[in-house]
Amino acid sequence: MPLLDADRLMPVDSAARGLARALYATVADLPIISPHGHTDPRWYATNAPFPDPAQLFVTPDHYVFRMLCSQGIALTDLGVPRADGGPTETDGRKIWRLFAQNYHLFRGTPSRMWLDHAFETVFGFDVPLSASTADDYYDRIDAALATPAFRPRALFDRFKIEVISTTDGALDDLRWHQMIRASGWQGRVVPAYRPDAVVDPEFAGFAENVARLGELTGEDTATWSGYLNAHRIRRAFFIGYGCTSSDHGHATARTEDLPQDQAALLFARALRGECSAEEADAFRGQMLTEMARMSLEDGLVLQIHPGSRRNHSASMLEMFGRDKGFDIPGRTDYVTALRPLLNAVGMDNRLSVIVFTLDESAYARELAPLAGVYPALKLGPAWWFHDSPEGMRRFREMTTETAGFYNTVGFNDDTRAYLSIPARHDVARRVDCAFLATLVRTGRLAETDAYEVAHDLAYRLAKQAYRL
Amino acid sequence: MPLLDADRLMPVDSAARGLARALYATVADLPIISPHGHTDPRWYATNAPFPDPAQLFVTPDHYVFRMLCSQGIALTDLGVPRADGGPTETDGRKIWRLFAQNYHLFRGTPSRMWLDHAFETVFGFDVPLSASTADDYYDRIDAALATPAFRPRALFDRFKIEVISTTDGALDDLRWHQMIRASGWQGRVVPAYRPDAVVDPEFAGFAENVARLGELTGEDTATWSGYLNAHRIRRAFFIGYGCTSSDHGHATARTEDLPQDQAALLFARALRGECSAEEADAFRGQMLTEMARMSLEDGLVLQIHPGSRRNHSASMLEMFGRDKGFDIPGRTDYVTALRPLLNAVGMDNRLSVIVFTLDESAYARELAPLAGVYPALKLGPAWWFHDSPEGMRRFREMTTETAGFYNTVGFNDDTRAYLSIPARHDVARRVDCAFLATLVRTGRLAETDAYEVAHDLAYRLAKQAYRL
Amino acid sequence: MPLLDADRLMPVDSAARGLARALYATVADLPIISPHGHTDPRWYATNAPFPDPAQLFVTPDHYVFRMLCSQGIALTDLGVPRADGGPTETDGRKIWRLFAQNYHLFRGTPSRMWLDHAFETVFGFDVPLSASTADDYYDRIDAALATPAFRPRALFDRFKIEVISTTDGALDDLRWHQMIRASGWQGRVVPAYRPDAVVDPEFAGFAENVARLGELTGEDTATWSGYLNAHRIRRAFFIGYGCTSSDHGHATARTEDLPQDQAALLFARALRGECSAEEADAFRGQMLTEMARMSLEDGLVLQIHPGSRRNHSASMLEMFGRDKGFDIPGRTDYVTALRPLLNAVGMDNRLSVIVFTLDESAYARELAPLAGVYPALKLGPAWWFHDSPEGMRRFREMTTETAGFYNTVGFNDDTRAYLSIPARHDVARRVDCAFLATLVRTGRLAETDAYEVAHDLAYRLAKQAYRL
Repeated sequence: MPLLDADRLMPVDSAARGLARALYATVADLPIISPHGHTDPRWYATNAPFPDPAQLFVTPDHYVFRMLCSQGIALTDLGVPRADGGPTETDGRKIWRLFAQNYHLFRGTPSRMWLDHAFETVFGFDVPLSASTADDYYDRIDAALATPAFRPRALFDRFKIEVISTTDGALDDLRWHQMIRASGWQGRVVPAYRPDAVVDPEFAGFAENVARLGELTGEDTATWSGYLNAHRIRRAFFIGYGCTSSDHGHATARTEDLPQDQAALLFARALRGECSAEEADAFRGQMLTEMARMSLEDGLVLQIHPGSRRNHSASMLEMFGRDKGFDIPGRTDYVTALRPLLNAVGMDNRLSVIVFTLDESAYARELAPLAGVYPALKLGPAWWFHDSPEGMRRFREMTTETAGFYNTVGFNDDTRAYLSIPARHDVARRVDCAFLATLVRTGRLAETDAYEVAHDLAYRLAKQAYRL
Repeated sequence: MPLLDADRLMPVDSAARGLARALYATVADLPIISPHGHTDPRWYATNAPFPDPAQLFVTPDHYVFRMLCSQGIALTDLGVPRADGGPTETDGRKIWRLFAQNYHLFRGTPSRMWLDHAFETVFGFDVPLSASTADDYYDRIDAALATPAFRPRALFDRFKIEVISTTDGALDDLRWHQMIRASGWQGRVVPAYRPDAVVDPEFAGFAENVARLGELTGEDTATWSGYLNAHRIRRAFFIGYGCTSSDHGHATARTEDLPQDQAALLFARALRGECSAEEADAFRGQMLTEMARMSLEDGLVLQIHPGSRRNHSASMLEMFGRDKGFDIPGRTDYVTALRPLLNAVGMDNRLSVIVFTLDESAYARELAPLAGVYPALKLGPAWWFHDSPEGMRRFREMTTETAGFYNTVGFNDDTRAYLSIPARHDVARRVDCAFLATLVRTGRLAETDAYEVAHDLAYRLAKQAYRL
Repeated sequence: MPLLDADRLMPVDSAARGLARALYATVADLPIISPHGHTDPRWYATNAPFPDPAQLFVTPDHYVFRMLCSQGIALTDLGVPRADGGPTETDGRKIWRLFAQNYHLFRGTPSRMWLDHAFETVFGFDVPLSASTADDYYDRIDAALATPAFRPRALFDRFKIEVISTTDGALDDLRWHQMIRASGWQGRVVPAYRPDAVVDPEFAGFAENVARLGELTGEDTATWSGYLNAHRIRRAFFIGYGCTSSDHGHATARTEDLPQDQAALLFARALRGECSAEEADAFRGQMLTEMARMSLEDGLVLQIHPGSRRNHSASMLEMFGRDKGFDIPGRTDYVTALRPLLNAVGMDNRLSVIVFTLDESAYARELAPLAGVYPALKLGPAWWFHDSPEGMRRFREMTTETAGFYNTVGFNDDTRAYLSIPARHDVARRVDCAFLATLVRTGRLAETDAYEVAHDLAYRLAKQAYRL
């Protein structure tokens, strides 16, 4: 019995299902364009084997360990490292068994689909993971990981990844990207410019980070113009390694377009650590507009990812640090927030600003109307908690009528879970084909057009929107 | 090959589809009640031919040109007039070709359905519009427009419009409405009273507009009581031309019920241009309640259309003026905002207040619960960006369980795109029949009742709610 | 012709329908766990017959009379008692006829399904209620109510209620619960601790209520520690009657975790009636966290029901009092609001905090992410206006992917309409089975797992989450 239903995510009705299958057949094997994600460039650089099944599937995947945590399982029992270096479980098999015993918690979740997809297509399992199959799973995955076919580069080829972007801090030396290039390996791995540490006055060590930015670029980053120039230089450095986008994850979508002298004063206050919360927010917003202006010069695509309230649990932040599943979406305004940036550069179609949301109520109300009129603005795909069959369906249902398909940018997996990448793209392709088939069967799209759109959504739009 | 699928918007499942078809067959040919819209009364008065295909389908339709704009096409290339009278494209064929070349952008949008509906049913096309068919389309439409059968009044009859309302400023002399009446033509075209220019302190020329209101009515509109009387007189003037409703488009749903002496003071400040943004908002809110009280006297239905943040792009406003596709919906509160008005007059069932929303998150949360209890309050149909198959479906799914069908008011097309009117009503009738058929097939509505409700939604409720 | 479709709420597609039916067959007859509701304990204590059909179905059910009110029918014509004791209709048959005449208003609403369910399954009707069948309905129901089989305890058994919770004020003497226990009847009826009157500084008579709390417990409730102790004592008193939960209905989800000395000062201000609206809100928020801490001691499940703006119509409140259908949901924030409580006790899996919402936009955005990570937090089912087929479907579609099934708590009916209880649980079971069947048919859930989950949602989770 396979873990995966061959018709999964297809429409239930047989007429629509037949067409959805036919559409899917034309895109199922297209190469993967992964323009936004969090895989570790070191994997591709060193091509070292993944350590063990738990380290591959459980310990680094916050989708997985947050669900286990929600039922009272301690993160230390799952091997999640402690911020203070204190004891955490290191026995992979023990972690794996705990995970397997609780695998029923994932019923109905996308994590379950992604995991089963990897279990079946990468490791060949045909019996579901459970307490009774835990050891067999562990042994077989563990053995496979030791073989060349399961090293990062081999999987890269097997997954048909045409290009993948990592996400890298502005101060990063891109050493792994250098090593990849130097290695002669042909896999295309590019960085993305993520400058949170040097554009957010509330980021730990902001002033030191900005000073370091000066050292790296030879600019006087104590001045506003030197600081902006330093960004230009770092962006050029990233572009030298194939970078085509910058990425900005703020709590809100606020943008500003202050007069340059006011921006300079705000920057000075930020460097001195004198910004109020409101001023820090304004400065971050100003930097989005500055980055958009730099994009007009150097062509980087600007990504805005607002809406996550990070580190909701103070005790978990203290014990385990950031990115431990305690980032919770909140209500996000776009209409007012994006106005300064859009008024500054939104009518310029040389620019590509891609906006994501964690607040689905903004899809039809704000984001589709904005992307459906501003030449510079495009909608990123359903994201994070909404990167799921229902989430993707809602995205299409709520954005297509006002923004069409061509103000969206295809799919991106946004993941650090390497083995989930083919599964995630497969889910997106299936959901989109199901949506298109339903449109055709309800007379809202011509069948011939549906084939073209299916290809656009699975492949062309991501490549084009991200200039890859 | 027809452009339209005969079963478009019917449920995919064959059992539900059969019933939906049967329901639709009973309402498909009902006359059109169009109680709220923006067609130009001059069309009906002069009955002049429409100038050319581009002027008919592209240049005046912000749904169409905003989508083209979103992909970097300049509005001047589409013939949209500039505010400064500067050059804009005037070659209809050139505009049409640009539109046709980019027709794929409308895939999956309601605009595409509306356009195809007109192309097929009004002009007889059976091949889709595209770059290669652009000239043929242009020639045939252009030729048709020169014939009597395509003049406004002939189309009015062909579209089976029983009655249509235009939207007219409070200071309008209704000359076209007078001319229609004087012409002896039997088409029923009525005005709606839209007093934005004289109730919104932030409207350009507010004080002058109010002075002009005084001249038109012989009232001293420098006083609060004279100002209110002047409204009464203008409303009576509109009613003389068949008007049954007033229409109010504010950024928020705020209402106020201030003591009359405070309202008078606020009005005085407004006339002197001394209102803060907050006070201007309060004044607009007060005027909604005043209008509601006048409605108790003269029977006009009060329509509230909140939630659009107008003219989002400052540069586009400057270059092209208002209503150019840059009005973006925003989050809208109703519970607190409508309370003063509802507390003043909401329990009076002689009154009919129809509320629309651009914020769908309010459907189930606020609007259905409010309309499901206050006798004076009814829900307007899915509106503007939500006037679409998915939007209409969500409207029914999210309002029916709490408000039922009989606290809604049927459909209105709200359009200035004359040729889209039959298409829009057809979409609404199909979506509603599909919804009803699904209710029947899932045991939530008796089949006999469904036929009655289908008729109510397509025809009777609009007529009754708008007192037409 | 039956009133109910045997396949109601099953998926339309035949493949999914067959499976949904099979799933439903396994849970349709499970006993009812009703862990949260508002039936009157007096019914079970005295086992007196219900007075007449109108008093059973119309006059006490705000779902019913608010819909009639929305179409202009006066509550006094429906027999709703006036606050001033003034005249209201007392002729049951007259009320019933008015209700029957207007039964079409309920088309498409859950009230219609609940009523028809009771009419058919409890009273054996097979012709719909209407003006022409009104008297027959009245006579037959009236006659039935006079017989032993229709007394509260007989219906309790007939409905297969395994356990039901009432909701009781903190100052309640639980005399009916005592009488039930003393009677030797085996029906399990337990109270829930609802302390609004003694935790909300804005509740009428707050200081007197707190003083009374002191008298009942022998604690000095003029002091913060005495006040908290008094709660502990009352909770223990409730627990003695089988209580397993407390229930808290605030306008917002605000929680606080102030230092104890500040909380004591705030309490003192509250007793003196000196709290501002903001301080009252803070105090209510503080008490949620205090109650959560007490739950860690005594094991009561903590329920938070925020988001209703109570008594929207001032005139209706004055004329008829509270709970008359004029409570309207509003936008509700959870991420920021719940943070103090969750930071204090949210990681403790001995605690069970169940959160409900009237703002569905929070399901996927805030509540599922929070419940999907905090061990102490669970999601209550679709609630109040959303306790309906579409509402329940949206609940599952928007929460399952992030929170899974096992961070939800099954269904509760939350009703004072006794005869609707089996109908409501039946609707929930059907909707859940339809959802599960759809997941299976789209490859998102294994068929064997679906049977287990169906049982969990219909029975086990409610029992476990509420510790019943």
